[in-house]
Amino acid sequence: MSEIPKTQKAVIFYENKGELQYKDIPVPEPKANEILINVKYSGVCHTDLHAWHGDWPLPTKLPLVGGHEGAGVVVAKGSEVKNFEIGDYAGIKWLNGSCMSCEFCEKSFEANCPKADLSGYTHDGSFQQYATADAVQAAHIPKGTDLAEVAPILCAGVTVYKALKTADLEPGQWVAISGAGGGLGTLAIQYAKAMGLRVLAIDGGEDKGTLCKELGAEVFVDFTKSKDIVSDIQAATNGGPHGVINVSVSEKAIEQSTEYVRTCGTVVLVGLPAGAVARAQVFGAVVKSIAIKGSYVGNRADTREAIDFFARGLVKSPIKIVGLSELPRVYEEMEKGAILGRYVVDTSK
Amino acid sequence: MSEIPKTQKAVIFYENKGELQYKDIPVPEPKANEILINVKYSGVCHTDLHAWHGDWPLPTKLPLVGGHEGAGVVVAKGSEVKNFEIGDYAGIKWLNGSCMSCEFCEKSFEANCPKADLSGYTHDGSFQQYATADAVQAAHIPKGTDLAEVAPILCAGVTVYKALKTADLEPGQWVAISGAGGGLGTLAIQYAKAMGLRVLAIDGGEDKGTLCKELGAEVFVDFTKSKDIVSDIQAATNGGPHGVINVSVSEKAIEQSTEYVRTCGTVVLVGLPAGAVARAQVFGAVVKSIAIKGSYVGNRADTREAIDFFARGLVKSPIKIVGLSELPRVYEEMEKGAILGRYVVDTSK
Amino acid sequence: MSEIPKTQKAVIFYENKGELQYKDIPVPEPKANEILINVKYSGVCHTDLHAWHGDWPLPTKLPLVGGHEGAGVVVAKGSEVKNFEIGDYAGIKWLNGSCMSCEFCEKSFEANCPKADLSGYTHDGSFQQYATADAVQAAHIPKGTDLAEVAPILCAGVTVYKALKTADLEPGQWVAISGAGGGLGTLAIQYAKAMGLRVLAIDGGEDKGTLCKELGAEVFVDFTKSKDIVSDIQAATNGGPHGVINVSVSEKAIEQSTEYVRTCGTVVLVGLPAGAVARAQVFGAVVKSIAIKGSYVGNRADTREAIDFFARGLVKSPIKIVGLSELPRVYEEMEKGAILGRYVVDTSK
Amino acid sequence: MSEIPKTQKAVIFYENKGELQYKDIPVPEPKANEILINVKYSGVCHTDLHAWHGDWPLPTKLPLVGGHEGAGVVVAKGSEVKNFEIGDYAGIKWLNGSCMSCEFCEKSFEANCPKADLSGYTHDGSFQQYATADAVQAAHIPKGTDLAEVAPILCAGVTVYKALKTADLEPGQWVAISGAGGGLGTLAIQYAKAMGLRVLAIDGGEDKGTLCKELGAEVFVDFTKSKDIVSDIQAATNGGPHGVINVSVSEKAIEQSTEYVRTCGTVVLVGLPAGAVARAQVFGAVVKSIAIKGSYVGNRADTREAIDFFARGLVKSPIKIVGLSELPRVYEEMEKGAILGRYVVDTSK
Repeated sequence: MSEIPKTQKAVIFYENKGELQYKDIPVPEPKANEILINVKYSGVCHTDLHAWHGDWPLPTKLPLVGGHEGAGVVVAKGSEVKNFEIGDYAGIKWLNGSCMSCEFCEKSFEANCPKADLSGYTHDGSFQQYATADAVQAAHIPKGTDLAEVAPILCAGVTVYKALKTADLEPGQWVAISGAGGGLGTLAIQYAKAMGLRVLAIDGGEDKGTLCKELGAEVFVDFTKSKDIVSDIQAATNGGPHGVINVSVSEKAIEQSTEYVRTCGTVVLVGLPAGAVARAQVFGAVVKSIAIKGSYVGNRADTREAIDFFARGLVKSPIKIVGLSELPRVYEEMEKGAILGRYVVDTSK
Repeated sequence: MSEIPKTQKAVIFYENKGELQYKDIPVPEPKANEILINVKYSGVCHTDLHAWHGDWPLPTKLPLVGGHEGAGVVVAKGSEVKNFEIGDYAGIKWLNGSCMSCEFCEKSFEANCPKADLSGYTHDGSFQQYATADAVQAAHIPKGTDLAEVAPILCAGVTVYKALKTADLEPGQWVAISGAGGGLGTLAIQYAKAMGLRVLAIDGGEDKGTLCKELGAEVFVDFTKSKDIVSDIQAATNGGPHGVINVSVSEKAIEQSTEYVRTCGTVVLVGLPAGAVARAQVFGAVVKSIAIKGSYVGNRADTREAIDFFARGLVKSPIKIVGLSELPRVYEEMEKGAILGRYVVDTSK
Repeated sequence: MSEIPKTQKAVIFYENKGELQYKDIPVPEPKANEILINVKYSGVCHTDLHAWHGDWPLPTKLPLVGGHEGAGVVVAKGSEVKNFEIGDYAGIKWLNGSCMSCEFCEKSFEANCPKADLSGYTHDGSFQQYATADAVQAAHIPKGTDLAEVAPILCAGVTVYKALKTADLEPGQWVAISGAGGGLGTLAIQYAKAMGLRVLAIDGGEDKGTLCKELGAEVFVDFTKSKDIVSDIQAATNGGPHGVINVSVSEKAIEQSTEYVRTCGTVVLVGLPAGAVARAQVFGAVVKSIAIKGSYVGNRADTREAIDFFARGLVKSPIKIVGLSELPRVYEEMEKGAILGRYVVDTSK
Repeated sequence: MSEIPKTQKAVIFYENKGELQYKDIPVPEPKANEILINVKYSGVCHTDLHAWHGDWPLPTKLPLVGGHEGAGVVVAKGSEVKNFEIGDYAGIKWLNGSCMSCEFCEKSFEANCPKADLSGYTHDGSFQQYATADAVQAAHIPKGTDLAEVAPILCAGVTVYKALKTADLEPGQWVAISGAGGGLGTLAIQYAKAMGLRVLAIDGGEDKGTLCKELGAEVFVDFTKSKDIVSDIQAATNGGPHGVINVSVSEKAIEQSTEYVRTCGTVVLVGLPAGAVARAQVFGAVVKSIAIKGSYVGNRADTREAIDFFARGLVKSPIKIVGLSELPRVYEEMEKGAILGRYVVDTSK
């Protein structure tokens, strides 16, 4: 283990929408219950953009180092930490810590803890070379795992895996992924397949169709071409998919999903669009006895399981690696909506 | 057992919104899989009004004898019927029969069967002295039960009991009943209490409050007086009710219920308002991880259980008995919204 | 559709352990709720031997035509049958019919109905060219399915699929199959894999090991070679399998499974050995919080799903086809324990 | 808040079965994650006797202060504790702490954690005036609660409540309590009733029968008088109880419970008899599709809920209060089996 330096490179901002500065800052020290992780790679997620913009109801810490998909190596730990050793691989995820004592934490819904501490939002995150993380919540990553590729699994992967579990499906049933061709969607297709589900992918354009099918979708419905998307989806699945994962946050797509979902099926909401409203006809919802469920991020168990599917090679995570110093440019691309695929930053560059 | 007559009294109409005629019609004959019930009493439900109006998407049989809350005595049975004996008490309910062979019937969601046959809607119902009913779906009513009081249990009781089961609560948790002072609501309070739940009742007016508390509600929230219903309900339940039963079909009340429901809680939709829309903020639904579920009518097991709670004296069914011949007047009152409590018609008058 | 003959070939016996006669008997007529199936192929199961021996607590019908894994074509139907058309493929399974009205039928546990009617046991079964079957319970088999190969799915396949569902596992978890190399076990491996589970197979001998791994087992434990089977299984699964399917009915194997199963895991009993006892240490069962569950045959939904996995090519059913007339010889082999693989009889020979 | 003394009274032993010394020992200091509780009362449980005897597979800490049902007031706390304030009421329970990071802790099965730290067993317990407790696991007790009466709820109450949850019953179903007249049994009856269940109590003697019925049992079966306990229980519950809680650890009683339990029902094992074996006929278990489940102690959520039922007055906890100095005499009585009811020690005497 090399020595821990006093300072490090990070991308930090001092006010919401303020300058993203790539600069030297002090290396933090772990508290009694924390580990210090030498972050090697970190994924870049839309949530990071919201944190910078400060446009969500919840205020961020300031100044802030963003990032919540960090993968690296444990280099130090607090006095009470018993579940990590120096040299272990560890992951930083959206939920940095929770109270472990409220009614939600008690039932393993720790992401719903009212005192949730969030990486890259209320706790300095993974856009730095050394980050602290609550040891109980930090992810265990098996030795030998590719730290760049596993990074997006820590948030995007866990989130879609949790959404699939929330849909409460059985192997052999149909799941529709709305927005299947994007970063979350392509992971969702692969997790669904590994869980024994049959996948109907929904997105726009031939390229997306080809990609979705390569990843395991049995059926692709192109919403730019379908004249009656409800009928088309129900016909392709012999009555509608048993579950729908709304990775797309379009209000129209969500409302349609409450129509094409199979009787007694489940519609899952998973994105976090500021201000969007989910709508469903009461009459249809009752007579078809459907459920509409919000799914947030996974808990510790979901994280362990999602990493396990990845580590066993059942899920691939296609990424583009750039230097941490290039993060401001990545944000610009995201703001323009010009981004394709998942960026991962290498903290050494 | 007295002889079965050839003709009987019934209330029948020949076209939707046509005259409701109280007249003599032939007594029907049971098919191989049916029983013939001498209906003693039948509840009157808003659905009966919809059937007469013909204002739901699904067309009714015509001419039609309405009614789907009928309680009486088995007087004849078809050759294949093995689960009823002559003289047994039997109940007619909304679901007269289903295919028993589709994927929904196979899993005991027979109310969701695409070929569902509906009493007083697609099959002549309980507003007559002698009605046929599919033996598999007909309700078993224990000997000694008051046939007038049990009548509303067969639809209203089963429906709210099913809604409470759909909310998936544990004894000791809070359930809010929105529209608690009405016919469905007062039954819901009692079932909830018998299930070990803590009840918060929502309705308007002091009289309703007194009634709800007498029936077992711990807390009453008067929506006509509350200045912030979301805060008031959350304060009274230490964070919001774990489940909400929306007996009220007001769109505003439904949307509010998605706000005051506890994190990880469940909102149940149970009424069938033509055209109404359920709305929920996506952001809140996801972060709070709530579920919104449609609950239709109960299946055979729900029916048996709901009747058992009633037969054990845990649920009272307050009714007003009038003659079957007075049914047209009852419909008029319902149309005016002037009705208070549950009417039950005595088929002998 | 060819004409239905008056007589047909069947294997029938007149008393338990009496002569198995291959002879002409009358073709039965379907009742109002029944279909008549021209049985093309029928699997042969150990239960058929028990029926002939009459060594189970439940008495058989006599004289009896055995068989409960029959696949064929619908050639006639009763007046009340709405879910089959002439020419459809249909399957005869262990549960021929049930009351559909008791508390178990109501909740889709129809196999547990106290009035269950059993094919080849209390109702003449599939060892004949034309058999009647209750239309509600008869299996729907998709057109194009190989009727010989699907036959064992109707009992053996459904039974192991149900056992796997009873184990209540999640994709990615470990399941141990005890007795993995036999007829039930080889199907169990394949269903488990299709359900996203990781399979540890237990049986004796190298050939069995090779077979199990070819079918999808990740690990094979040879009980004839292991010096400490509990430790070996726990080591191979990082703490024990989350579920165990005891296809083997050895009392020792069952007791061991309660030891090696993972903490909070589930042991499933699925065979029907006359007189065998399942044993578990109370202390261990409590501290590890394990469940031991009996799993009987599947219901209608399980049957449909098990056939669907087969029809989609995810499960292969290796069989040996012989003529119906050779059935007595097959019984002899089974009694000697000399049988390898699953026999299917061709009723035309 | 009064000052914390340096020494205190405790009952301590230096080797298993060694002398139980009532003497002055130092007051412990809380670690960063611990609270220091001024224990006012502590229940005495059979497990305490096992800890002293050292006759369980798991070795105890030595020297040891026993006790794991302690109720008191928080007088100090470690630097990382955020969920307790000085002056709060807090409870010591069997599970003092767990790793919070293994697959069992992650899913809220923390009692099954392989690194579980146990009060009065591997961590000094509540038979002293000042005890440390892990803040995350320590029970929150509402202000105003009677600290003597709540003490047995912390282990006995939580344990039977958890067992009832493990039986997975619905309100209105029957539960049998085997050993209903004892300390655990009398609590089980009350919790069951509060959960909306119908209770059949099994024990020996008229006094026990009277007691059980006063507490809410609908039926009492006296095993000393019944000539066929299986038939009697099935007759009284119209087919057998849906669940059975085996508070009694008699091997015969456990085996019988697998016979009289209703088809598709659940038998729960909850006591910890050293060496006892649970037996069930495989044939019956499979055909009836029953489950046999071990239930250990509750988790944090179960504890909170069990205390809530008590605090709402739905469960009474009849106790006999003696001084802590009298503990050795209580142990003697327990060893003789002469104990009736639950002893609680007052640490001030």
